[in-house]
Amino acid sequence: MALDQERVEEAALRILELLCRQGSVSAEARELDETAELTEELLRGAGFETRQLRVGGGPAAVYGELRGRGNYTLLLYNHYDVQPVGPLELWESPPFEPTLRDGKLFARGAADNKGEFAVRLAVVRALREAERELPLTLRWIVEGEEEIASPHFDEIVRAHVEALGADGCLWEGVTARLSDGRASVAVGFKGMLAVRLDVRLLESDAHSAAAAVVPSAPWRLLEALASLRDSDGAVRIDGFYDPVQGATEAERQAIAAASETMEAGLREAVGIDSFIDDLTGAALREEASFRPTCNIAGIKSGYSGPGFKAVLPAEASAWLDFRLVPDQRPDKVLALLRSHLERHGFDEIEVTVMGTAESAGTSIDHPLVQRVVRIAEEVTGQPPSIIPRMGATLPIITSLQRHLDVPGVAAPDNPFYWGSRAHAPNEHIRLEDIGHAIKFTHSLFLNLASPPSRLLRLASSRLRRASTWF
Amino acid sequence: MALDQERVEEAALRILELLCRQGSVSAEARELDETAELTEELLRGAGFETRQLRVGGGPAAVYGELRGRGNYTLLLYNHYDVQPVGPLELWESPPFEPTLRDGKLFARGAADNKGEFAVRLAVVRALREAERELPLTLRWIVEGEEEIASPHFDEIVRAHVEALGADGCLWEGVTARLSDGRASVAVGFKGMLAVRLDVRLLESDAHSAAAAVVPSAPWRLLEALASLRDSDGAVRIDGFYDPVQGATEAERQAIAAASETMEAGLREAVGIDSFIDDLTGAALREEASFRPTCNIAGIKSGYSGPGFKAVLPAEASAWLDFRLVPDQRPDKVLALLRSHLERHGFDEIEVTVMGTAESAGTSIDHPLVQRVVRIAEEVTGQPPSIIPRMGATLPIITSLQRHLDVPGVAAPDNPFYWGSRAHAPNEHIRLEDIGHAIKFTHSLFLNLASPPSRLLRLASSRLRRASTWF
Repeated sequence: MALDQERVEEAALRILELLCRQGSVSAEARELDETAELTEELLRGAGFETRQLRVGGGPAAVYGELRGRGNYTLLLYNHYDVQPVGPLELWESPPFEPTLRDGKLFARGAADNKGEFAVRLAVVRALREAERELPLTLRWIVEGEEEIASPHFDEIVRAHVEALGADGCLWEGVTARLSDGRASVAVGFKGMLAVRLDVRLLESDAHSAAAAVVPSAPWRLLEALASLRDSDGAVRIDGFYDPVQGATEAERQAIAAASETMEAGLREAVGIDSFIDDLTGAALREEASFRPTCNIAGIKSGYSGPGFKAVLPAEASAWLDFRLVPDQRPDKVLALLRSHLERHGFDEIEVTVMGTAESAGTSIDHPLVQRVVRIAEEVTGQPPSIIPRMGATLPIITSLQRHLDVPGVAAPDNPFYWGSRAHAPNEHIRLEDIGHAIKFTHSLFLNLASPPSRLLRLASSRLRRASTWF
Repeated sequence: MALDQERVEEAALRILELLCRQGSVSAEARELDETAELTEELLRGAGFETRQLRVGGGPAAVYGELRGRGNYTLLLYNHYDVQPVGPLELWESPPFEPTLRDGKLFARGAADNKGEFAVRLAVVRALREAERELPLTLRWIVEGEEEIASPHFDEIVRAHVEALGADGCLWEGVTARLSDGRASVAVGFKGMLAVRLDVRLLESDAHSAAAAVVPSAPWRLLEALASLRDSDGAVRIDGFYDPVQGATEAERQAIAAASETMEAGLREAVGIDSFIDDLTGAALREEASFRPTCNIAGIKSGYSGPGFKAVLPAEASAWLDFRLVPDQRPDKVLALLRSHLERHGFDEIEVTVMGTAESAGTSIDHPLVQRVVRIAEEVTGQPPSIIPRMGATLPIITSLQRHLDVPGVAAPDNPFYWGSRAHAPNEHIRLEDIGHAIKFTHSLFLNLASPPSRLLRLASSRLRRASTWF
């Protein structure tokens, strides 16, 4: 079935601009109801039966269903909320006035995650104009709290197991077209334990003249932190690595065959010449995917303004996140951390849990993954770059797997790229990526539920071996 | 010569209230000219010949001279500037509206250091009313930058060596009356090296998902800090302790005989039950006086707001102060610190000097000190509590000693006490301490230049042995 590519691109852009005019900042509880209503209206206009799902005091998650031919049901996940805009003066155009410049659309949320929603919706509309019915049933959930770690999502999923049930799920997707022309596919995410450590040894700050006799909260915190990690980054908490399983052979092969894009992109994003241990290529990607970490996200004590204040601080705090690999459970790591601190005599250090997420993903050999990989190859003419496990964490996956038992994948239907500046000022997408994402999405909706024979001629021999009909 | 104590107390209080209405916050360059003019006018009214000393862009230091009988010249040091008011909402009355409450005067600067200036001036006035001439010549310098570490003071002293020359100096003084009824005397101050350590490893913050491969500035800073100090507080920089001389026998005796006030006061001020190593009594005071320290005054990296932000910070900073004992030169310690960091491979850590001060003081056996001690004993009826070396630092002493070679002492002519909350909200003095400070100051001005015979009957045998005429 032919696609009027240009027309669908224009439609996607219009939808995206409409959504980007909404300042739906979840951290500020801003314009969430309005954006949920706009999202619902857009789904309704494309033929979905919709409703708003709410639990507790959270904003609505928008739900829609569009019945199609055949027995295959695909669940789509997106979010309509966005990050705060950050330093407004760094934006070259107002964050909530979508602006076309240099072949790009600038707006908060353009890349994360309104662009993907717009692409998916534009493709659905085009398919429905061509034939009355899609070859598969779509269910869609668009939540409003992803940027604040989806605090109500698990409860929403648990309360609507029937409505959300599906054969496969497309999570928030990954780059539609890497710089080497390949599509990218991600199948797993690390888990996380985020904690705050607080030490308070005095009721109020002392003059630092008393340092010879008054105990120091920042020194005490530093000793505790130093006990957690070697200088090579190895975590020194007993038992931390016990459940860690290495990468499977399939994962190693995928990592080896993946694009260098992550390396170049990360290098440019943070402005460094070399990575830890001068890692490059497959070794770098393997470390990023499979090594659990203990990161200091923040630390604060005493005076940090201009000049100098000779104070002995009463308290000190550190914010840590542990990124975890499969079988490293956050609750177990928390227990190990607590007993480590106790065993080393750091009784005065208070541990507060700031967030947890299980490591989650889908096996690279899973038929859904293999089908997405083949479709991506069909569209781009080359095998996609597969990341078995992102360094990031996507808490929603755990809920989808736990309550719905639905396999999922982050597919290349997202019109963003390494330079999109998601979460930063001047967030944008390249217009060309809308076209790439549409091509993949169109092919996916048409072919996901088809018997494999239709695709066989396009698949590489390596992929053909691994794939099975599902 | 009898003193109309009540009348002088009232005069001191009036002068103090007048000065405390000036919001002379040096850190904010606020009302400094006005306060310098008021100070000069007050000195002029008491018979001083005055002028304003200025160097660079700094505010004026007010200078005055009042010639008296005899050959002894005493230099008085005070400062008219005050600390910022801090959180205004914590003040029970406006900081620059001096308020009498519960036998106390509340105002920013009441304790630090306008109260002492008012007491000294009220006593001078009373003496001049009684006799036309004082028995000694007074020279007085009142600077306006003490609370920001006296950045122009050294140059001012160097430029006015002749005008400031004297036989002895009263530095900013110490508590007129401790809770056990004794006066206090301090003769030495620790030196200081204040530095900021900065590590910047990335151009911008990374997502903490990249922690497995991107180097961490806060972890690197923590490693460097951990290398500087043992958990028992011992500094691990090679050569740091080499020049350290222990306390002299006279200093040890003074420490042993000193009041417990510092212990109780400090305990209450910071709200702790016990000090490092459960130190108490003379052992605690000895440690506070003679142990050099490495203190973390501040540390900051990454996100420290509400909630959690999964960031891998691009940079990290720490503010350290080393408190130094005699013969530990700040420039030498700085060189040792730099070579320590270099030798341990911390090349990426940038060291910025934020301030230095030499350890400085006067020998406890010095005739000026012994004379002040004897006068304090005369006034209170018991030997004063002598601190050979405060944990704090008074940079002005180095300038006075270097350029003028004038011995000095922190005498009990200051109407403040442990609970005065200098630098904090609700700064105040107790009215009764004005009376105590006046009694000491009056006796000092009358007797400092007198032959020892007049005082002999009052001195303890121990003190008599050590004293010599000067």
